Amino acid sequence: MAMKSFVEVNPDSHFPLQNLPFGVFKHEPGSHARPGVAIGDYVLDLSVIAAAGLFDGPCLKSSDCFNQPNLNSFLQLGRSAWKEARETLQRLLSATEPQLRDNASLRQKALIPMGKVEMLLPVAIGDYTDFFSSMHHAKNCGAIFRGPETPINRNWFHLPIAYHGRASSIVVSGTDITRPRGQAYPTGDSAPYFGPSRKLDFELEMAAVVGPGNELGKPVSIEDAKNHIFGLVLMNDWSARDIQAWEYVPLGPFLGKSFGTTLSPWIVTLDALEPFSCDVPNQDPPPLPYLAEKISKNYDISLEVLIKLAGKEDSCTVTKSNFKHLYWTITQQLAHHTVNGCNLRPGDLLGSGTISGPEPGSLGCLLELTWNGQKPLSLGGVTRTFLEDGDEVILTGYCKGDGYKLGFGACSGKIIPSPH
Amino acid sequence: MAMKSFVEVNPDSHFPLQNLPFGVFKHEPGSHARPGVAIGDYVLDLSVIAAAGLFDGPCLKSSDCFNQPNLNSFLQLGRSAWKEARETLQRLLSATEPQLRDNASLRQKALIPMGKVEMLLPVAIGDYTDFFSSMHHAKNCGAIFRGPETPINRNWFHLPIAYHGRASSIVVSGTDITRPRGQAYPTGDSAPYFGPSRKLDFELEMAAVVGPGNELGKPVSIEDAKNHIFGLVLMNDWSARDIQAWEYVPLGPFLGKSFGTTLSPWIVTLDALEPFSCDVPNQDPPPLPYLAEKISKNYDISLEVLIKLAGKEDSCTVTKSNFKHLYWTITQQLAHHTVNGCNLRPGDLLGSGTISGPEPGSLGCLLELTWNGQKPLSLGGVTRTFLEDGDEVILTGYCKGDGYKLGFGACSGKIIPSPH
Repeated sequence: MAMKSFVEVNPDSHFPLQNLPFGVFKHEPGSHARPGVAIGDYVLDLSVIAAAGLFDGPCLKSSDCFNQPNLNSFLQLGRSAWKEARETLQRLLSATEPQLRDNASLRQKALIPMGKVEMLLPVAIGDYTDFFSSMHHAKNCGAIFRGPETPINRNWFHLPIAYHGRASSIVVSGTDITRPRGQAYPTGDSAPYFGPSRKLDFELEMAAVVGPGNELGKPVSIEDAKNHIFGLVLMNDWSARDIQAWEYVPLGPFLGKSFGTTLSPWIVTLDALEPFSCDVPNQDPPPLPYLAEKISKNYDISLEVLIKLAGKEDSCTVTKSNFKHLYWTITQQLAHHTVNGCNLRPGDLLGSGTISGPEPGSLGCLLELTWNGQKPLSLGGVTRTFLEDGDEVILTGYCKGDGYKLGFGACSGKIIPSPH
Repeated sequence: MAMKSFVEVNPDSHFPLQNLPFGVFKHEPGSHARPGVAIGDYVLDLSVIAAAGLFDGPCLKSSDCFNQPNLNSFLQLGRSAWKEARETLQRLLSATEPQLRDNASLRQKALIPMGKVEMLLPVAIGDYTDFFSSMHHAKNCGAIFRGPETPINRNWFHLPIAYHGRASSIVVSGTDITRPRGQAYPTGDSAPYFGPSRKLDFELEMAAVVGPGNELGKPVSIEDAKNHIFGLVLMNDWSARDIQAWEYVPLGPFLGKSFGTTLSPWIVTLDALEPFSCDVPNQDPPPLPYLAEKISKNYDISLEVLIKLAGKEDSCTVTKSNFKHLYWTITQQLAHHTVNGCNLRPGDLLGSGTISGPEPGSLGCLLELTWNGQKPLSLGGVTRTFLEDGDEVILTGYCKGDGYKLGFGACSGKIIPSPH
């Protein structure tokens, strides 16, 4: 029997009762930020539910985690608190439960139309790490940047390669992205080009949000890694390919990435995603013991990137991919990240890296889709190699359930011109 | 005439009245962390000075920045507040000023013997960036990792190369460092080695602490960059060379660095360092206009690394270097960092990269000093290639004034064994 809420949920909605993703919102300008969950076209204000004493389980009864401007305190509480919150909320919102359904004044206070709220970043992000977990993406980038002979370095198959990203420039969906200026490859012996990036790109990614952290010097084992991940968000890791190509040897990407990274506002929990777990591509060579999982899980999440071209009304689909294409799992990423003793903190982000699939129509960025600008894309009669000022990029993702969708909402951003 | 404090300051002390570096301390276990400045063998509690109404200038009069567990609020106030604080404190602590000198009960409350306090990290660090600004270090690392033909990439001379570091694992001087475990280069076709790092190294660095930040999308010009830097600290960017060598292509250092970074507790302000400013090495090719400074400044800071070997009482000098050897200035680093619109926040760190000088005795890490372990060092009759469990590494640095030293104190850490 399908779970049903007393709140009407359109079959195309990303937010049925099965989902209940967590986010942070402001009701009115100037009001306090507070946590909420999405249900249909509404946001349920968790500070109101908490104040009404409806979180009555052992973990949350005396907690002030829903009276906070971000989800970090809630995330720190760990999996038992997350399960308790989910069970409480699924019960409160179900069609058969009168407690909230039949209390008009509480309903009025607690359920706010989504169109009336401003969504904020759901967590305060201490550190943001970006992995490189799609083999197809690694192979294509290697071929483009270093040539087709050995597109993937040998180390890639032994460990989940990653770099530290910039936390300060992570923004929530809907925030404009300023075209970065920077240096790019010189032509011949001349000085490097300097100016607004000419190869501005999106990257279709998802990111895992860390729950309880670990102490410095105390690794998290692969068996325990799942308990340290709260959920997933969509992420657009905007990239300036010309800046990146010139700067990245030998210390990795820096200004080619640090001008902005966009997150979707709703964190979909691993508990909600569990019915959509699926197998992982065969890992050969077999991972070292500290990365070897008894059960390796990916998630079957359909992903799509749309671009609304500058000056146009309609958006065009640019690519379709799926989270299940990733070679390294999020639990392997987390175990690897901490094996040296590095400490994670609640709210830290582990980006997946660009999620490219094996087919030409499933590549996760324009660098790959246009082969570094050599093969322009035709989008609704207009050609594009890289992004132009005014272009808006929209990532979406959802899992297909029986009679419902369980999704992430949108992760969008529009390019605005460089400062003079 | 030499500036003199009524607090006795030994001529060898790093903390005369000319210095007044800022830090954060706890007086007793369980007590609140609060800001202080160092004077001789004492810490002046700034929360007490503020409570007594002695910060009476326009910027600080109504500020609660010294009633905070870190210096971030003070740093955000900017250069005029920093100057006001420095002037107020130099006056209050001077031998000729009775206000604090002759108030025994206030003195008793405000001046705490340094031996009785616990020093903490002075700032909450949002993001930590590590540059690569010593040409000698870049050349040696390039020769060791890639061969002697083209040790320095062409891009290095055009821009201050950097990577994002890990903020969560930055610790204050005196914190033990756990030897990281990880993967290292496989021998031939075998699987990579996994276990405790066999090439654990220190890196002699300094870091600039960011004052007021900038908005996302709004670069800081090279002329304005100085107003965004509060001061400098010593930094040991511990590195596992075997882990680093295997993982760093193509996205840069990750687990080879993220297990720990040690800071000295006292931030020496640029105002205090001003008398020790000096010329910068010739930059050829000339920097692009966004990096071109009317006046380019380095600072003449003598640096030394000592190791107290496991089980020994005395420490041995391993290397002597100087901050003035850096090719790229801290203002160029900051202008470059923001030119793409990346936002900095108060308390962010800009590491210099390893500070190697031109002579063999001035190299800033064991990788260079032992040429990747090929030439062991003899230290007090014992040989070392890389660090052993129980070794303690101590960085120190000071400027030589006329009849006084102006220093940074120590930045130390001891290696403890990997977990099983």
